[in-house]
Amino acid sequence: MTAEPLADQRVLREIGRAEALDLLATVTYGRVVFTLAALPAIRPVNHVVDDGEIVIRTRRLAGLSTALADHADGAIDQPDLVVAYEADHLDPVERTGWSVVVTGIATVITDPERLRRIAERLHPWVDSAMDTAIAIAPEIVSGMRLVTG
Amino acid sequence: MTAEPLADQRVLREIGRAEALDLLATVTYGRVVFTLAALPAIRPVNHVVDDGEIVIRTRRLAGLSTALADHADGAIDQPDLVVAYEADHLDPVERTGWSVVVTGIATVITDPERLRRIAERLHPWVDSAMDTAIAIAPEIVSGMRLVTG
Repeated sequence: MTAEPLADQRVLREIGRAEALDLLATVTYGRVVFTLAALPAIRPVNHVVDDGEIVIRTRRLAGLSTALADHADGAIDQPDLVVAYEADHLDPVERTGWSVVVTGIATVITDPERLRRIAERLHPWVDSAMDTAIAIAPEIVSGMRLVTG
Repeated sequence: MTAEPLADQRVLREIGRAEALDLLATVTYGRVVFTLAALPAIRPVNHVVDDGEIVIRTRRLAGLSTALADHADGAIDQPDLVVAYEADHLDPVERTGWSVVVTGIATVITDPERLRRIAERLHPWVDSAMDTAIAIAPEIVSGMRLVTG
């Protein structure tokens, strides 16, 4: 399949881990990706970068919490729950911007000190109770920029 | 864990299938979610809604193409490759906007007539060859709006 090339087409440039994590910290929301009932699932959520990890909050009984709970109960026969987290800042008119994807193990935060610190920085957007805080340790970090050629 | 409630906190409203698909057609890009090497994978990509399906283009050998090819080769023992597609339009300052997630079976488009139609409407943002067009049939459609309370 061929399409007419655009006169001002963009080039994809990979960006490194440090810059990718810095970019993640410049935005307040992204999307967490996980597997629920053997199907790919994705939810937009706001985040902070705390101690080198992506931290999000979710409702108890929301999809990701369910996946983590199943996991903890041994219902899912895997050593760890791996999730992806994506954020981007793209301009569809200019067709420029960046996207970052972090893949890593998700764990429920239980340390009271850390929970207090997170609660001060990470405010739920919605009025339902967001009672679970989840940290994603960035094992694999990839990022790209769309730049002019 | 409790956080100070925001004075102008938002309420989540579910939106129906028809409205969700209409919203998808108002934006030009989103994120395709799939499983690659047993890990959750996500890629930002531009799309069009064609004949009730989400259509995206991808590079041969890019992650999603690989997943589809493995699938066609019988390397993945599943009847169909299920993916999710997410688009949103969120204002992190006002904390309002919408998000739509479509889950369905991804298939490579081979019909030359349809490929021609897609090529006219869906232009790759980057200068690499986008030689595979993929249609996602919306089996499960969910959407939400963040609105003032």
